[in-house]
Amino acid sequence: MTITAEQVRQLREKTGAGMMECKKALSEAQGDIEKAIDVLRRAGNERMAGRTGRAASEGLVDAYVHPGNRVGVLIEVNCETDFVARTPEFAELTRNLAMQVAAAGAEYVRREDVPAERVAKEREIYAAQMEGQKKPPAILEKIVDGKLEKFYAEVCLLEQPYIRDDKVKVRDLVTKLVQKMGENIKVGRFARFEIGQD
Amino acid sequence: MTITAEQVRQLREKTGAGMMECKKALSEAQGDIEKAIDVLRRAGNERMAGRTGRAASEGLVDAYVHPGNRVGVLIEVNCETDFVARTPEFAELTRNLAMQVAAAGAEYVRREDVPAERVAKEREIYAAQMEGQKKPPAILEKIVDGKLEKFYAEVCLLEQPYIRDDKVKVRDLVTKLVQKMGENIKVGRFARFEIGQD
Repeated sequence: MTITAEQVRQLREKTGAGMMECKKALSEAQGDIEKAIDVLRRAGNERMAGRTGRAASEGLVDAYVHPGNRVGVLIEVNCETDFVARTPEFAELTRNLAMQVAAAGAEYVRREDVPAERVAKEREIYAAQMEGQKKPPAILEKIVDGKLEKFYAEVCLLEQPYIRDDKVKVRDLVTKLVQKMGENIKVGRFARFEIGQD
Repeated sequence: MTITAEQVRQLREKTGAGMMECKKALSEAQGDIEKAIDVLRRAGNERMAGRTGRAASEGLVDAYVHPGNRVGVLIEVNCETDFVARTPEFAELTRNLAMQVAAAGAEYVRREDVPAERVAKEREIYAAQMEGQKKPPAILEKIVDGKLEKFYAEVCLLEQPYIRDDKVKVRDLVTKLVQKMGENIKVGRFARFEIGQD
């Protein structure tokens, strides 16, 4: 079975995979591009661990506005290839994340995005709440850490419980699709506007 | 004709107008609430000049996503009363402004929102462009001012030419509805996301 350069080019364009990878997948699929895409996606699945550092510069922008137009969300979710961006699963994830932000009101994507001053202020508040309690400093520190975890789970999208299934974290939704697609997928940014809250 | 407290209450709830204003409007409309609303709106129209300083804390959030989901906009437009926010004209303005931002890519609502450092940098660039030109400083200053006006008309939503009619400024669209509704209306904020531009 001979694989032509043109077939390889087409497959690369559709999947963003490397040249040798495409050639191998086409051989395995006996020149059938659709089958070769499946081969690549399965292979991607197996190589998942190495993916999270890869550039995610494709993706989708989507919006969700609550009926009544008092709350709205704009979100950008990124992946590595236009191929994945155009799958119904990716569109569904993006939409669900937009609805999550609208309903649960996240302020940041991930905990690393929370400004240090805000974290310091939260810590201060928790410490003040426990003033006068005769507990060893190590215990107090642990309680503050615990409260901070709860805070992150409230304000960080990826750490929130999913609105449609609170046994699942939002991060798990994303990870699940990363595993299925074999591509790095990440929430790029979002904006949430609510009338009267600026 | 006796106006009941209940009629006044209903009219206030619908329009946000003051109690005495509502009573007077109801008298004029002989107790007909729909007609009283018209009376209030006409009165509002006449008082326009005093309106621009009034609190605009109601309004709508709307979104527009270009087909293909690579560009999206979220916008909040404010007015004074829920009554105006729920008119089709206000919804239309909000939608058109969202499309304007998507298509013409404004970065700020108004020129006052452009950071001083950015304006200073623009001035520097224009001055550098004209270096070596043997023109009097006063003329150079005027040319820089002119270029700055062009810059504002590009990056400030309210100063942009309207995408559907470039003889109209976006600000004029808003002003037209302010005059029709007799309420302060302002663009509160917007966000514009484009894939690959962070």
